[in-house]
Amino acid sequence: MTENQQTLLDQAQKAVLERHFFTPYPEAPSRRTYGENANPEGRAAFEAQLGKAYGLRQQHDATLLSAEVSPFTREALGITYPIQQDPAAYLANSYAAFQSWKKTAATERAGILMETLERLQARFFEQAYASMHTTGQGFVMAFQSSGPHANDRALEALAMGMIELERFPQEAFDWVKPMGKTQVRLRKRYHNVPKGIGLVIGCSTFPVWNSIPAVFANLITGNTVILKPHPLAIYPAAIVVDELQQVLEAHGHDPHIVQLAPDRPETPITRHLAEDPSVQLVDYTGGNVFGAYVESLQGKEVFTEKTGVNSILLDSVEELESVLNNLSFSLSLYSGQMCTCPQNIFIPREGIKANGKQLSYEEVVQALVAAVQAFVANEKMLGSLGALQNDSTYARVQDAQGLGARVLLASQDLRHPDFPKARLRSHLILEAQPEQYELFSRELFGPIVFVIPTESREQSLQLAKKLAREAGAISCAAYTTDPAFEARIEEEMAEAGTPVSFNLDGMFWVNQNAAFSDFHVTGGNPAGNASLSDPLFLRRRFTVVGMRSREKNVRMG
Amino acid sequence: MTENQQTLLDQAQKAVLERHFFTPYPEAPSRRTYGENANPEGRAAFEAQLGKAYGLRQQHDATLLSAEVSPFTREALGITYPIQQDPAAYLANSYAAFQSWKKTAATERAGILMETLERLQARFFEQAYASMHTTGQGFVMAFQSSGPHANDRALEALAMGMIELERFPQEAFDWVKPMGKTQVRLRKRYHNVPKGIGLVIGCSTFPVWNSIPAVFANLITGNTVILKPHPLAIYPAAIVVDELQQVLEAHGHDPHIVQLAPDRPETPITRHLAEDPSVQLVDYTGGNVFGAYVESLQGKEVFTEKTGVNSILLDSVEELESVLNNLSFSLSLYSGQMCTCPQNIFIPREGIKANGKQLSYEEVVQALVAAVQAFVANEKMLGSLGALQNDSTYARVQDAQGLGARVLLASQDLRHPDFPKARLRSHLILEAQPEQYELFSRELFGPIVFVIPTESREQSLQLAKKLAREAGAISCAAYTTDPAFEARIEEEMAEAGTPVSFNLDGMFWVNQNAAFSDFHVTGGNPAGNASLSDPLFLRRRFTVVGMRSREKNVRMG
Repeated sequence: MTENQQTLLDQAQKAVLERHFFTPYPEAPSRRTYGENANPEGRAAFEAQLGKAYGLRQQHDATLLSAEVSPFTREALGITYPIQQDPAAYLANSYAAFQSWKKTAATERAGILMETLERLQARFFEQAYASMHTTGQGFVMAFQSSGPHANDRALEALAMGMIELERFPQEAFDWVKPMGKTQVRLRKRYHNVPKGIGLVIGCSTFPVWNSIPAVFANLITGNTVILKPHPLAIYPAAIVVDELQQVLEAHGHDPHIVQLAPDRPETPITRHLAEDPSVQLVDYTGGNVFGAYVESLQGKEVFTEKTGVNSILLDSVEELESVLNNLSFSLSLYSGQMCTCPQNIFIPREGIKANGKQLSYEEVVQALVAAVQAFVANEKMLGSLGALQNDSTYARVQDAQGLGARVLLASQDLRHPDFPKARLRSHLILEAQPEQYELFSRELFGPIVFVIPTESREQSLQLAKKLAREAGAISCAAYTTDPAFEARIEEEMAEAGTPVSFNLDGMFWVNQNAAFSDFHVTGGNPAGNASLSDPLFLRRRFTVVGMRSREKNVRMG
Repeated sequence: MTENQQTLLDQAQKAVLERHFFTPYPEAPSRRTYGENANPEGRAAFEAQLGKAYGLRQQHDATLLSAEVSPFTREALGITYPIQQDPAAYLANSYAAFQSWKKTAATERAGILMETLERLQARFFEQAYASMHTTGQGFVMAFQSSGPHANDRALEALAMGMIELERFPQEAFDWVKPMGKTQVRLRKRYHNVPKGIGLVIGCSTFPVWNSIPAVFANLITGNTVILKPHPLAIYPAAIVVDELQQVLEAHGHDPHIVQLAPDRPETPITRHLAEDPSVQLVDYTGGNVFGAYVESLQGKEVFTEKTGVNSILLDSVEELESVLNNLSFSLSLYSGQMCTCPQNIFIPREGIKANGKQLSYEEVVQALVAAVQAFVANEKMLGSLGALQNDSTYARVQDAQGLGARVLLASQDLRHPDFPKARLRSHLILEAQPEQYELFSRELFGPIVFVIPTESREQSLQLAKKLAREAGAISCAAYTTDPAFEARIEEEMAEAGTPVSFNLDGMFWVNQNAAFSDFHVTGGNPAGNASLSDPLFLRRRFTVVGMRSREKNVRMG
């Protein structure tokens, strides 16, 4: 590790323990930070890749034409990737690579990962275009989520991993038990034993951000990785594997320590890999149904981020306009395709206190609808909607209008300012009654939000808590100027394992999670247990085994 | 917490991180340490309890006449315990008690647990007799395992729990994100949220040692406990619950924070409790079959210690006699009824290097048989055999003589020097060939050991590794004077998640595990995942939930 890398790792370790603000990777894709040529060069690299084979340093016996289609241009990316026709070949190569990787010193593994992060940073702009044209995220968001923010989360996992690996004495030491006039003396040492092969199953909306922490967590703890990307978002994952393989090879390691195992929607290979007994670790991001299957796998360490149904509680606000500006942005960002995006807004029927007076429920709802309308009417903001990743999400918005809930704001097709063919719809705002729990407790992924008029703020809270406990939740936003009610929300939602953001306005949204400070997914409700990056996320990936020897030339007892 | 308690807790926290020797509870049941009257008073308390009702501070609507029978006297203890006829009543009371316990400060919980340890220490001798006459352990072992060593493990869990609870900032702090000329400022804090009700399922051989770490781990992290003891070993568990309830009540807490839920073999209640959705944590010690059932429970945090098949590898020794003295004691201690007791002894067919020369396989086996014979012929040592806990173990020894393995030393009934009716048999030594893997890979709990002549020391090692991986292992003893082979054993057995003790002789045995230093059960093989007490053993019992608020009077962004 270079001195700079060591310094950065030390800072990262300090940050994860203290939880203060930390980010070594500037999040703005600005010329001043990244240089005049970074964007055009990244774009050129992306364009040069389209329709071509993506080369990787891994054994293969065939190529796969990917099913990736840009949600903006609606054109196939046309990229081919090297594959093994028999998925067992990935496992065999991973197992072989594991034999040397597990013996590699943790500090050496850390150096390789630190160097990879530097190299990924040099490809942030290509990655931004790759992510944009697979996920449908707007350019800035794609840059941030797959670039600096993903690097943050990877570094965080690496830092927490080193902390966990170094927590107990590794070096041999003397354990001495006094026994009256004599003593027992044993020489003890502890080994961190990696579990084996880790399968990381990616998703289509955050192919890097949601996968790279698991990849880095596995690698730093000495496990090997097979990254099975979502069939619609392979390119962003390929960049990560590519850079890792290059650094590994440059340092004399087997590039099969990390492999990319892409597939097509009609010929999935995930179950084949996940069920193999040699796979000891499975990380999964995606829907509930496959998530439940992954969680049912016996004898493996399983980490999941499934879906959640996130709530907003409105009780009282200082200034409604700034709150609704914040909320409408939260809803609209990436058209509701974030796991932290709100789905249900609970508003008491009696209305809320705002701007020093009592506003009726109807007034609040009208203001909310107006704010969302204003958002999509503002062409400057349209870019942040991105595009809908797939046809199912598009169809879901259409279908939701017929669910039996009152339509407060109909969804309409939008024309993306730069990509006329982009799949894009404005937010659908529905009103559901508290009794329609079946309706709003389903995750309706995409630009769909329910407003739910409640008997009281207490009913709002109890519904949000019930939803979190039964359907899972990853975020919650609450607005109250009453400190006593704030404390109550905090207590109740904590019990439901749900982080709450109170009274956000301005330029920070409930969707945002800061690496090194905010644990993403708590493990305290059905949304999943892959908490980025708490100690369990690392510690469960290796076993500590203690050894003890009679000290030479010391007779015991 | 008193100053003394705080000092002791600080020392314990230091010890669990440094893994050095530490034990605040003297392990010898000596008059000098515990006072002239401690033993007779403990014995008197035990005798006064026989045939009587055991009073607890918990709601009940019936009493249960326990099935406990002394393995020494073969007489029923005749104790009755308060019970709830409907097990759901335990759950309801536990849930009610959870509502206040979860809000109790961790330091207050720690104080209550520290005080309980002091009170348990004052009952070590009664506990020794209670444990002896339920488990069949000899007096000294019963004293140690249910007294000082159990207190050590409980304190260890408590100390590790406090470390985990205090690992991240609890107090609110300002998180400040620079945004060009402005900044976003959030006030953040993290809550440790306990999971809920913890069910602890005890075993008949170590009713305190194997249960109290889970009880303390649950309580320090804010969970409530229902302790379901083994129907044949209730009294030792009742003492623990009794003292906890007294301390809880004295400090104004609901004694139902911990309840005893005893049953009888013919009317078990464990599944009813384990399957209830309100039970979020299950700790289990016992056999594989029920253990697999416990591990299959979905949506709960499960900790198990199941069975293991432990190996001894003989390659080369400095002095055979001291090694065989050590080994025969390891085998004989509590008649092989310890989870750390060896079952299979691998000896190369070509023999081993010992005392500076090559000894043939036959010579080594003869010396081993002689050492075991000498052990049981020495009436002073007989006490350490204890008694067989139950008829199944007795029958297993009988049946094992007909398994098809060559009998090297037949088992015979022994007469206990103090208890003529005690169920007791000498060790059965069988010889199995490496091909008879099916035979020696089953755990044959009790005084049964296989000697297995192997092609080579390498085959010995590979069989031990395979056994650990497939059948589980909790301990391994290896004897080699060759540093290169020692390193190989260390590497291979570490991969199988098995701690190895090298070249033990004298007064320290492979069966012994030191709290604060040796992790008991690694989680790296099928023997279980309840590692006493690694961070996972504590951390998995609560969820960390982060909260963040816009700072008052600070406009964001």
